[in-house]
Amino acid sequence: MSSHPILAEALRGGIVESFHRGALAIVDADGGVHTALGDIDRPVFPRSAIKVLQALPLVASGAADRFGLSDEELALACASHGGEPRHAATAAAMLAKAGLDVDALECGTHWPYHDGSIKALAAAGQPPSALHNNCSGKHAGFVCLGCLLAEQAGGRDRRDYLRGYVRPDHPVMREVTAALQATTGYELARTAVGTDGCSIPTYAIPLRHLAHAFARVATGCGLSPGHARAAQRLRAAVARAPYMVAGSGRLDTRLMERLGERLFCKVGAEGMYCAALPELGLGVAIKIDDGNNARACEVVLAAVVERLLPLADDDRAFVHGLSDLALGNWNGIEVGRLRAADALRGGARHR
Amino acid sequence: MSSHPILAEALRGGIVESFHRGALAIVDADGGVHTALGDIDRPVFPRSAIKVLQALPLVASGAADRFGLSDEELALACASHGGEPRHAATAAAMLAKAGLDVDALECGTHWPYHDGSIKALAAAGQPPSALHNNCSGKHAGFVCLGCLLAEQAGGRDRRDYLRGYVRPDHPVMREVTAALQATTGYELARTAVGTDGCSIPTYAIPLRHLAHAFARVATGCGLSPGHARAAQRLRAAVARAPYMVAGSGRLDTRLMERLGERLFCKVGAEGMYCAALPELGLGVAIKIDDGNNARACEVVLAAVVERLLPLADDDRAFVHGLSDLALGNWNGIEVGRLRAADALRGGARHR
Repeated sequence: MSSHPILAEALRGGIVESFHRGALAIVDADGGVHTALGDIDRPVFPRSAIKVLQALPLVASGAADRFGLSDEELALACASHGGEPRHAATAAAMLAKAGLDVDALECGTHWPYHDGSIKALAAAGQPPSALHNNCSGKHAGFVCLGCLLAEQAGGRDRRDYLRGYVRPDHPVMREVTAALQATTGYELARTAVGTDGCSIPTYAIPLRHLAHAFARVATGCGLSPGHARAAQRLRAAVARAPYMVAGSGRLDTRLMERLGERLFCKVGAEGMYCAALPELGLGVAIKIDDGNNARACEVVLAAVVERLLPLADDDRAFVHGLSDLALGNWNGIEVGRLRAADALRGGARHR
Repeated sequence: MSSHPILAEALRGGIVESFHRGALAIVDADGGVHTALGDIDRPVFPRSAIKVLQALPLVASGAADRFGLSDEELALACASHGGEPRHAATAAAMLAKAGLDVDALECGTHWPYHDGSIKALAAAGQPPSALHNNCSGKHAGFVCLGCLLAEQAGGRDRRDYLRGYVRPDHPVMREVTAALQATTGYELARTAVGTDGCSIPTYAIPLRHLAHAFARVATGCGLSPGHARAAQRLRAAVARAPYMVAGSGRLDTRLMERLGERLFCKVGAEGMYCAALPELGLGVAIKIDDGNNARACEVVLAAVVERLLPLADDDRAFVHGLSDLALGNWNGIEVGRLRAADALRGGARHR
């Protein structure tokens, strides 16, 4: 495998202690490549970075209207949330609107990502439930979609109909996969398929196609009218409720609280990021080779936003502080920095 | 920076999802290179992987005998422990033997690494203390060394004498740095110096020199008689109390519980590992470029042990299970594997 450029580095004692290689695609809605760093044609698993694409059928089918989902609930359907109390309660509310409860979720259970929420549950002597799973909002959206499909299939029993909705051949997941196929334009039937953390399929897709899909989400161009309206509605919902898409202190929440509808961005496992920049008509897709945690893809995404979006000085300083940040130790002493690499600051390759 | 070989990879859906590049040195006590992968002459911060070298003065000075430290306590002096109750209690006992308490520690406070211990503290409504810091045993060892030095300096007040022991110019840290200089044979006065998580200095040292130091720890060859005896005693202490050097479920504990004195190994932050293989007279040093968490250096270390040590079938199967392991999702489904790369399985470059 050829070597990718260094996209982020961690400094200590005046030298680079660790560094992260990866690839980055910035593409317009016509598929024109604005920026390419590394191999943007190698298929990669987008994981949770494409939850907004997977939520398109929830809106386009009419299920979001049928069950009266709010902005908060639509944002949670696109989320990898921290399992904070409001996140869990919102997922429960979505299920209740469809006449169901936590037992309908097939995402599995894990302790919240959010540190304070772990300790609060432990202090209360409560185990976590599937509502705390970071994907519970996405799955609650799948459940709502499935309930509409069950009605359309002649009023079948919702619980029976939904069983196994995470499987690729279930009508719910077929709708979700069809949306992914339509927006990315990539032949999913011929690519590698893995199983995601929450048990639904994840399809390997090149960064070029992922960035193209997010340019379409940014503009609506190249989407069906139903998907275009759904994308616009989901972007607006997340911009109005950015806490729901991630949570306290998380990058997606912080950036979208600051920039509103000027940016839609979403982290995924194993070093993935996707973003849409509506005013520029561009989509972004990032994969850090090592995929080990989010630190590298986060500073890279922030550097891309800093570089592409025209920003007022205070917004620029805010975003810069997320692309080049101090690393402290247990005594709160600054011991180094984490920052996007020069390839992203100076001259990324245009073609 | 030239590109390092791929040392570990994470697979999902039949393809490589993420991969980790890095460098590896295996060196004998004469400094002869048994194996080199990547650039072994670039200085890297060894972080906590060299705690056993930093503990040599505690034993060689006579402080360990003066305060009657047990095997458990000497193992904790070499540890990045999980902050489990026994770890915290053992650090407190070391301090008590020197007539001091937690207030003497300058490592800072963090919540335990060990998940169950976080939740137990939270459930009890107790905040963590510096005793839960993964470095509290190393620092308790520094405190014991400092108390002996204070006595030797004419019975100076221990607390006064110890204050600022984490600073490079303090007598305690000068002893620790001298041991590092002597065992690695690397000119520390001329290299980059960073501040570690626990506030002591960390010196950038090439993997070649780190592996050489661990070959000396393995054999005693090339060390002063005092350091040789101290190294042997620390290795034996860790082999008898491997729970203390890491904790429940941690790789260092699991490997040394299984292999005893045949292996001494120690993880460090940012993708570091060092190990000593006494029966082979070899030292090992590993740095994963991205340094993001321990998953990559752990499978690489296990693969090195599997490849180098003559093992009975059941031990081989045990170690292999640590170099090539299943990745599960939130529903407990196997979704991929994490494994050392072919470079470590087939033909590492010898020279």
